[in-house]
Amino acid sequence: MDEFELIGRYFTGLDKGPGVVLGVGDDAAILAVPAGEELVTSVDTVVEGVHFPADAFPEDVGYRAVAAAASDLAAMGARPLAMTLALTLPAAEPLWLTAFSNGVGTAASAFALPLVGGDTTRGAAVVVSVQVFGTVAEGRALRRAGARPGDRVVVSGTFGDAAAALELLAERWRPDPRDGEYLLRRFYRPQPRLALGQALLDVASAAIDVSDGLLADLGHIAAASAVAIDVEAAAVPLSGVLRAHPDPQTARAWALGGGDDYELAFTLPPGTPVPPGCSVIGEVVRGRGVTCDVPAAAPGYRHFAADGDGRESDDR
Amino acid sequence: MDEFELIGRYFTGLDKGPGVVLGVGDDAAILAVPAGEELVTSVDTVVEGVHFPADAFPEDVGYRAVAAAASDLAAMGARPLAMTLALTLPAAEPLWLTAFSNGVGTAASAFALPLVGGDTTRGAAVVVSVQVFGTVAEGRALRRAGARPGDRVVVSGTFGDAAAALELLAERWRPDPRDGEYLLRRFYRPQPRLALGQALLDVASAAIDVSDGLLADLGHIAAASAVAIDVEAAAVPLSGVLRAHPDPQTARAWALGGGDDYELAFTLPPGTPVPPGCSVIGEVVRGRGVTCDVPAAAPGYRHFAADGDGRESDDR
Repeated sequence: MDEFELIGRYFTGLDKGPGVVLGVGDDAAILAVPAGEELVTSVDTVVEGVHFPADAFPEDVGYRAVAAAASDLAAMGARPLAMTLALTLPAAEPLWLTAFSNGVGTAASAFALPLVGGDTTRGAAVVVSVQVFGTVAEGRALRRAGARPGDRVVVSGTFGDAAAALELLAERWRPDPRDGEYLLRRFYRPQPRLALGQALLDVASAAIDVSDGLLADLGHIAAASAVAIDVEAAAVPLSGVLRAHPDPQTARAWALGGGDDYELAFTLPPGTPVPPGCSVIGEVVRGRGVTCDVPAAAPGYRHFAADGDGRESDDR
Repeated sequence: MDEFELIGRYFTGLDKGPGVVLGVGDDAAILAVPAGEELVTSVDTVVEGVHFPADAFPEDVGYRAVAAAASDLAAMGARPLAMTLALTLPAAEPLWLTAFSNGVGTAASAFALPLVGGDTTRGAAVVVSVQVFGTVAEGRALRRAGARPGDRVVVSGTFGDAAAALELLAERWRPDPRDGEYLLRRFYRPQPRLALGQALLDVASAAIDVSDGLLADLGHIAAASAVAIDVEAAAVPLSGVLRAHPDPQTARAWALGGGDDYELAFTLPPGTPVPPGCSVIGEVVRGRGVTCDVPAAAPGYRHFAADGDGRESDDR
């Protein structure tokens, strides 16, 4: 047994949960999907130097990788069941691994995602793939398709903080230190809207989580639903930090074009109440594509690395 | 949409299957697990330069990554349901991607594993993570635990061909060209024993797939079952190519210590017939660990790279 096989020991004790029949230590994990429910699953990969800086705190890297993957379960309205972790590392460094596994463990516990398996391999850069599993009643999962003309477009939380944090990390902007701390926390510790997603089952006509950018992700709903979406830029909610930004246009561009906020965007049929903490930002109309009353509001979404963009897509 | 988002298009049309409720194109896939069955899942990662040479045919890389992951389903006796693919690449090269996706597609079809989702990211080296999903009747999955003194130790197929192929790839050995072709095919196109695994349900007392090396993997059964295993080296089946090797000790060492053969090793209670194409190679006795009548028969298992070993483990 070599150092890489031993890495698994940093992740022990995280594999207990109500749906876990068999956790780590065999050829595969076994999960129970309740009768009448379907399995929802998604994989999300983050790469050092592309999705997060090489000097990021490993605890944050672990937490954020799990949170980003869990956000896809939220977008489907699924109840978390379990996850697996595929980790590629240049070397087995105990300090890094301890901190990283603490971050994974904190997120596992926060989002009710026991870690039931994984694979650790040696490679040139840190690559973290998190596969999440959830369950949802048969035929009831939220999808991108389903929005109809007349529906309102609604979002949770606020937008643009993660994009602002990326500007800060790239040293293209230097906010007040306390504001910077807030933005970095928003970037590294996103809160997937799992409870909201489940509350939207049988309520929302379509849903997506905002990882690529608000307008880009609304474009996915519009395309899948064969409708158009009109967005009122001023209605998109901003955090206090972004509202106080000296250049409102910049803050607005981050909110409309930036990714990584991991909020939910969804459509509500007429008459359906807007959930608490959510904001109506536009409406579904006949047509195709997304229009916004602020022209050229959405710069291409930039990841951390200026030279590579490493966009993610589950659209294969 | 950039080149990396477009990569998903190389993998279209592979997401249809009886258990696939929703394939690609949404935030997550939805899979149906039949009533009375449990979900079996495992992730397997391969890294360029560690698990396969950088100049390997991309078709082989894609096929082998899927086959290796599917082998874990075989070891549990699970029926294949679906898979996802997380792919990290330094660049989006159309020729490479076409060939790689052909290999993935061939394996998807051969092993009944529709590709229901994935994630493509930019990174320094090629990293391929395949997550496989299968189903098995509740409580019936094969496990590593369960072997009892008096059981016979049985294996499918032959052993050592993949280890011999690694020696060939590392240019430490130059076999007859036709033999070399055979060995490389065994390495790059492993055949996970899915039908055998399902046939062993309710028959075998314990099972594992041989990826780390025969003696090492039997050690996992022995440890999980709290028993000892005695192996008779001469009973371990070899291919014609390995039987013809000028140094029988070398061939035997490959068979006992080499990994990547993706055959099944399992234990059968007394009186249970040995399945066709399988061989009894030893017995389960009281005690701990694995003994073999050929001393020092098992050199440490070497991956392709001489400088890194990148062993895999699901034991976290």
